[in-house]
Amino acid sequence: MRLVTYRSGAEAAARLGVIQGDLVVDVALLGQTVGVDLPDTMLGLIDFGRIGVERLGEILSDCQGRFAAGIAQPLANVKLLAPIPRPRKNIFGIGLNYVEHVAESAKSLDTSKDLPKQPVIFSKPPTTVIGPGDAIEHNARITQQLDWEVELAAIIGVTAKRVSKEQALAHVFGYSVMIDVSARDNRRAGQWIFSKGQDTYAPFGPCIVTADEIPDPHELDLWLTVNGVEKQRSNTRFMLFDVPTLIADISSGITLEPGDIIATGTPEGVGAGRTPQEWMWPGDVVEATVQGIGTIRHPVVAV
Amino acid sequence: MRLVTYRSGAEAAARLGVIQGDLVVDVALLGQTVGVDLPDTMLGLIDFGRIGVERLGEILSDCQGRFAAGIAQPLANVKLLAPIPRPRKNIFGIGLNYVEHVAESAKSLDTSKDLPKQPVIFSKPPTTVIGPGDAIEHNARITQQLDWEVELAAIIGVTAKRVSKEQALAHVFGYSVMIDVSARDNRRAGQWIFSKGQDTYAPFGPCIVTADEIPDPHELDLWLTVNGVEKQRSNTRFMLFDVPTLIADISSGITLEPGDIIATGTPEGVGAGRTPQEWMWPGDVVEATVQGIGTIRHPVVAV
Repeated sequence: MRLVTYRSGAEAAARLGVIQGDLVVDVALLGQTVGVDLPDTMLGLIDFGRIGVERLGEILSDCQGRFAAGIAQPLANVKLLAPIPRPRKNIFGIGLNYVEHVAESAKSLDTSKDLPKQPVIFSKPPTTVIGPGDAIEHNARITQQLDWEVELAAIIGVTAKRVSKEQALAHVFGYSVMIDVSARDNRRAGQWIFSKGQDTYAPFGPCIVTADEIPDPHELDLWLTVNGVEKQRSNTRFMLFDVPTLIADISSGITLEPGDIIATGTPEGVGAGRTPQEWMWPGDVVEATVQGIGTIRHPVVAV
Repeated sequence: MRLVTYRSGAEAAARLGVIQGDLVVDVALLGQTVGVDLPDTMLGLIDFGRIGVERLGEILSDCQGRFAAGIAQPLANVKLLAPIPRPRKNIFGIGLNYVEHVAESAKSLDTSKDLPKQPVIFSKPPTTVIGPGDAIEHNARITQQLDWEVELAAIIGVTAKRVSKEQALAHVFGYSVMIDVSARDNRRAGQWIFSKGQDTYAPFGPCIVTADEIPDPHELDLWLTVNGVEKQRSNTRFMLFDVPTLIADISSGITLEPGDIIATGTPEGVGAGRTPQEWMWPGDVVEATVQGIGTIRHPVVAV
């Protein structure tokens, strides 16, 4: 199931939708047509637990692609927002989680060339999130090194505290695409939050694909282009710490909650690791894709 | 004004209160007695803006210390919770913000002996927050180096984006006390979120003192004891980057929002900096005070 948060017009409220072919179907309104109370936000649906997605699936199946007027509209007519426009906490990011990216980072940044023995966790405030098509802010007063990182994002569905690797994937609601934007020259005493945590630094979308449709999140190609030129291409099978390991590890000390987002790290090809180094500038357009999920495309604008 | 979040009994809902002598007065119920709609949560009051606190002050003034039955009760009869039991995002922590603490950290940890040129920002998820008296978890499976740090916490009242130092204090709602608990052996590639971000690692309280009662947040003694033995004592005047500088700096890239918490850093005397090093263990009791705000006291328990 491909779930989106969208707006029908500039002034319309955000709604939860599910993609059916080239239509977006309003989840809460669809529920009303059959007398089932379904939520109108992504976090609401996640909080419902597995039963929410199952019930939605049954209703869609019964509809056989036919929807009453006002329930469905062409996807092309709506503005997609970030699937979770306002997370309830920081996003958990994972640094140095693809082998070649560890090597390129060690050459150009202040990180070690040794592979990390445990996941390297950092965070991005919820104010970093922007939706498909929204602009990434380039503030030349504080950065000249704005960099890209395409990542698979895992969305937590069920509270996880001290879960084992074996139990971990049962706690995932679904998957999405995130660009972990970084101002490389804004690291401070090694801490990444200011470099990775500025407003607009987490482009996120276009949808959340529910976990049942991605049985193995470690066989997905992912790639990124800047102005149409490919900069990153890899596959999630090259993650150093896979999704179950990340969930088990974070939850060993930090309770993961429904709606939490883990950005699982980026492969090689970031701007900092290139020779010569490359950065994003106002006027650039960056496009990130994870296989089976979708593509997000973002202009860079001066602020 | 000294504002608290409290519970009258184990099963009672959390309420917003204001301290009057040895009484706690229910803010929303007090408002009802005079036909004024006042919020029943701290975040609700903060969102009201300055007018909420002003209106509350006027009502309290009119009451002259006399409150109808059911509106006020002895402070000793209630359980205080964290003033904001569930922040809407990560807490912003500031590392290495007192000169002597920079020196002790450089000796014992992996930080530089040079004074930072800009604030060193890190984050703690909202799941770190516990209220007065709640237990700090000691998980011996993952840490043998649980450390203390007493800090002045500044609570944001008004959205701040790219504000100047001169404008910054006008964006503060009030001040509180926080212990920035750290598992020193849980740093990873220099990142602090896992070492500082585990559940229960942000004891917070006992109240928020509104900014009008603390015109200068840089003349407050602060100290911390473990099992009654003083470990830290300093004054907020020794901060390297003062509160206006921190707000101006963070908001240069990250929008600060009402209810956001900045833990402004700790002075010297942490366990990692002592000879020999000292850590907190199950059975210990840690007590932290900031002058003019109050004291929080927390047992350490094995989990």
